[in-house]
Amino acid sequence: MRFDIQQLTTGIHDGDRRSLARAITLVESARDDHRDMALTLLAGLDIDRQGLRIGLSGTPGVGKSTFIETFGLMLTGRNLRVAVLAVDPSSARSGGSILGDKTRMEFLSRDPKAFIRPSPSQTQLGGVAQRTRDAVRLCEAAGFDIVLIETVGVGQSETVVAQMADLFVLLLAPAGGDELQGVKRGIMEMADIVLVNKADGDLKPQAQRTCADYAGALRLLRRRAQDKDGFPLAMTVSALDSTGLEQAWDRMTELAEWRRATGIFAQTRAEQARHWFKEDLRSEMMSLLTRDPALQRRLIGLEEAVARGEMTPAVAARAALAPLKGA
Amino acid sequence: MRFDIQQLTTGIHDGDRRSLARAITLVESARDDHRDMALTLLAGLDIDRQGLRIGLSGTPGVGKSTFIETFGLMLTGRNLRVAVLAVDPSSARSGGSILGDKTRMEFLSRDPKAFIRPSPSQTQLGGVAQRTRDAVRLCEAAGFDIVLIETVGVGQSETVVAQMADLFVLLLAPAGGDELQGVKRGIMEMADIVLVNKADGDLKPQAQRTCADYAGALRLLRRRAQDKDGFPLAMTVSALDSTGLEQAWDRMTELAEWRRATGIFAQTRAEQARHWFKEDLRSEMMSLLTRDPALQRRLIGLEEAVARGEMTPAVAARAALAPLKGA
Repeated sequence: MRFDIQQLTTGIHDGDRRSLARAITLVESARDDHRDMALTLLAGLDIDRQGLRIGLSGTPGVGKSTFIETFGLMLTGRNLRVAVLAVDPSSARSGGSILGDKTRMEFLSRDPKAFIRPSPSQTQLGGVAQRTRDAVRLCEAAGFDIVLIETVGVGQSETVVAQMADLFVLLLAPAGGDELQGVKRGIMEMADIVLVNKADGDLKPQAQRTCADYAGALRLLRRRAQDKDGFPLAMTVSALDSTGLEQAWDRMTELAEWRRATGIFAQTRAEQARHWFKEDLRSEMMSLLTRDPALQRRLIGLEEAVARGEMTPAVAARAALAPLKGA
Repeated sequence: MRFDIQQLTTGIHDGDRRSLARAITLVESARDDHRDMALTLLAGLDIDRQGLRIGLSGTPGVGKSTFIETFGLMLTGRNLRVAVLAVDPSSARSGGSILGDKTRMEFLSRDPKAFIRPSPSQTQLGGVAQRTRDAVRLCEAAGFDIVLIETVGVGQSETVVAQMADLFVLLLAPAGGDELQGVKRGIMEMADIVLVNKADGDLKPQAQRTCADYAGALRLLRRRAQDKDGFPLAMTVSALDSTGLEQAWDRMTELAEWRRATGIFAQTRAEQARHWFKEDLRSEMMSLLTRDPALQRRLIGLEEAVARGEMTPAVAARAALAPLKGA
């Protein structure tokens, strides 16, 4: 696969979805020469274009695909351009998630104002996170107003998504009162808005009870600096009936606007950027040692010496970096 | 402070406690030139000398100091040389822990076969862990048969201690049945032996009940490859009356011998060494970027550009390492 960086940059800035898709393929590539090109591309993007990054977590069965489909269409109906990205380190195992995502969101995927991209197929959460962050930047540079980053809530993936989002939304299904415990406390604490989906038909009363339970639970959490009065909050929606979605969007924009006005929005982005800089620095440093075959052999040899007890880890670590010292 | 590496090496190999103390001061130093000397010293140590590394966790109030004092004296009474190290990232805040440790273990600290060293005064657990691992190597090279690594059980410190120990012992005080939950499940799962202390006087029946509770709880845990039949186990001891300590030591040696015979002992050490190698590699790489004032300024400048949103983290991370590329 060949990539023309200049052409991709122009295409992205023109909002061309095919260029965007190709650029994301480039940033997702594990090839060293592709990574070099990806960084050149990222470095040349218009930094003033920024969308609203919404993190969305929901376990299988809560109706996440239907929600994204109807919520996304509601947004494009308001003339907003919507990109949907996914963080799912398990997708490499289940396979076929590209097809899955596209068919799950049949109408949104055909909407010219929308762009849907499944999770990069890597099993390491760190790798998925890095690729997704790069993809968020590409979507923003391509003029997308909303970047929805969804995760299935496996392991640490919510934390990773919360670290790259401006708002964090937790999607739940109606449940019995004793199932409240099923949501990990850590995820509750990250949520700005809890949406109880499936508030339709027979499930409506149960959805309302679940919503009340979560509203009560959210009030017990310690207030964070980024919480506007009344937030975090819980509300019911029905992706199936398209009810509550406008209200949910109103609350999201209300919170985002308040955060912008108070400076919290920019401050959070700055903190997130510092965090990811440190993460990227680590992986770049590691790739510096493993890109060169001779350095990699040296590294493996040192690790084996450490494992055999012939060298202490600290001494071996210093030795591993010796070739870089002359710089 | 000046250090003569040749003299220190000879002193350590001769088992001289003053040389050992001085060498630990060297490995604990944050100065770059001291770190260079420390690594030279560590690289030149006799690798064939290895002691039994026992991790010991116990929250304040369980009688840990009294236990170490009497247990340590029992071991030196058997002509074993005992080193006691501590991992306590909070000690920098509380201060005065050197004096505290020495006076807490009045007799052991004056025993010529023992060596007691408090936690290095750093607030970062990673830094404390690295320094303590280096100190363990120094103690082993100085011919200590047992290296007892104690921790107060704050935050992640038990995990860190378990990662550098051959055996992990959890010291507890007698408690009501409902207090069983007070021990974090993660710590229970790391324990090879649970010792319920204070099985003396009025507390004895309560200690026995607590012991039975923990024995039951341990049986619920999934068996690990490193568990000999009958392990992990719970038993009562009294550091005050010096009862149960010989039996506890017998079980520790039983488990250690079994692990040596099965190859698990060496395998665990190899895995731990690989783990620490990766950790040390990270911190060495970071220090490579921060040791040189020009590189450090560059790094800070890039981080600020990232925080202001002028550069994406991935691009800045690559740029930060550019000076190292020529190697």
